[in-house]
Amino acid sequence: MAKIKVAFQGERGAFSELAAQNFFKAQFTALPCETFEAIYDAVESGHAQRGVIPIENSLVGSIHRNYDLLLERKLHVIGETQVRIVHCLLANRNVPISQISRAISHPVALDQCRQFFKQHKRISPETFYDTAGAAKHVAETAPIGTAAIAGPFAAQLYGLRILKRSIEDEKSNYTRFLLVAKKPQLFKGKAKTSIVFSTKNQPGILYKALSVFALRDIDLTKIESRPVRHRVWQYHFYIDFIGNTRDEHVRCALDHLGEIAHFVRILGCYPLKVTS
Amino acid sequence: MAKIKVAFQGERGAFSELAAQNFFKAQFTALPCETFEAIYDAVESGHAQRGVIPIENSLVGSIHRNYDLLLERKLHVIGETQVRIVHCLLANRNVPISQISRAISHPVALDQCRQFFKQHKRISPETFYDTAGAAKHVAETAPIGTAAIAGPFAAQLYGLRILKRSIEDEKSNYTRFLLVAKKPQLFKGKAKTSIVFSTKNQPGILYKALSVFALRDIDLTKIESRPVRHRVWQYHFYIDFIGNTRDEHVRCALDHLGEIAHFVRILGCYPLKVTS
Repeated sequence: MAKIKVAFQGERGAFSELAAQNFFKAQFTALPCETFEAIYDAVESGHAQRGVIPIENSLVGSIHRNYDLLLERKLHVIGETQVRIVHCLLANRNVPISQISRAISHPVALDQCRQFFKQHKRISPETFYDTAGAAKHVAETAPIGTAAIAGPFAAQLYGLRILKRSIEDEKSNYTRFLLVAKKPQLFKGKAKTSIVFSTKNQPGILYKALSVFALRDIDLTKIESRPVRHRVWQYHFYIDFIGNTRDEHVRCALDHLGEIAHFVRILGCYPLKVTS
Repeated sequence: MAKIKVAFQGERGAFSELAAQNFFKAQFTALPCETFEAIYDAVESGHAQRGVIPIENSLVGSIHRNYDLLLERKLHVIGETQVRIVHCLLANRNVPISQISRAISHPVALDQCRQFFKQHKRISPETFYDTAGAAKHVAETAPIGTAAIAGPFAAQLYGLRILKRSIEDEKSNYTRFLLVAKKPQLFKGKAKTSIVFSTKNQPGILYKALSVFALRDIDLTKIESRPVRHRVWQYHFYIDFIGNTRDEHVRCALDHLGEIAHFVRILGCYPLKVTS
């Protein structure tokens, strides 16, 4: 049986691949992409059946590029999951921590391990383009005195040893990922829906827009605003709410929003997995 | 008369310095800082009397680091202004455009001049840490075949010639800046107020929070959300609205918000200059 092909950004072993595992267990073929744009290209062209994109991190905030791309491109969100971000110090087998003088990783990962570097002043952080890419580099070229900071999954994939596990400063570090596909996936049951809309610039208009949900006891889980191109200081609003587009009260809310906003698009409706 | 000292991020000639000119004409001494954090340090320590921070760009969106720093630090917003971002190709005098083979600038600036690079395939973009820093580098070291992409103000400051003016793809490119100080500045008249608040996680709570403004016909100009540390998938909401904290209806709205939110802070009240 042909496995489903899943595009994600980063090298094999990236946290995005872990998110893909949440969706598909081991039943998928990984298609690593250099950029977020390449994920959308791959799924739109049919080269991959699914894409996995990071949409927000509980420490860093929204990944705005993916909010913009969800609007620019025409893919549908059909799932969500979250991954706990665990950073580990990884080295080749038989290299003790006493021999490590530098640790390579993505700058965001290095920045999330400040305490580790304070406690290990002998080890200097050095930026690399990707966390999993750093693990791959250490495994393939075995540079002297160099460790990588990446997830335990990358260690397993590249046969590296975990010298120190969970060296991130903040343990409540989660990234929420969306699963995207060319077609929406209708289903029954407990759901989250993601939409984007924009309004005319009128006093109280955002309040009116939110009223369509509040008046129907629909719970919002996220609101994000992004600038509208060619219209200075105007915004697109992205909202996630609990509810299935098949439910009548959700359909009524979206019809009602259509009266207030001059643009509304449903980005997707998918099984609810991440709650606050 | 001693001039006021104003801290901003970037080299002399940065767009932030242009913003400082909007506030103080030529009546200030520039204190260029390497990082946003250094601006807050300088103003908190009294080394500078004022700081100028970019808070949002009409194309790129919010500068989230400064939203976070406004909350972490204790400075007060006392003014706002906006600067039109105009990118120019700058070279030393007597260097014609035909001799230019590379253009250095901040990656965001390079990305905003894609059309220029498509039309001038001989000129390759190369990243530099800062737009004004690129102009300074070209002026001071005159690297062969190298131009900088920066604002016209940087050209003037470093004695460079403008080979091409306004090469940015999108002309409606504005950055909004805030003026920060150690103490708030009370005044009468038309104002904007910036606040940050967080709420308990209850259905409809954001709607209730916005109702304190809508019910009093107070116009919101911006809403931004940022993650709360140590509380996964919870958010601080930043709101700008038209109104002076001296006005009774604004005081009532903020009191009302205090009943709904479990944390409210006024970041500042300042003369209204930027409207959408």
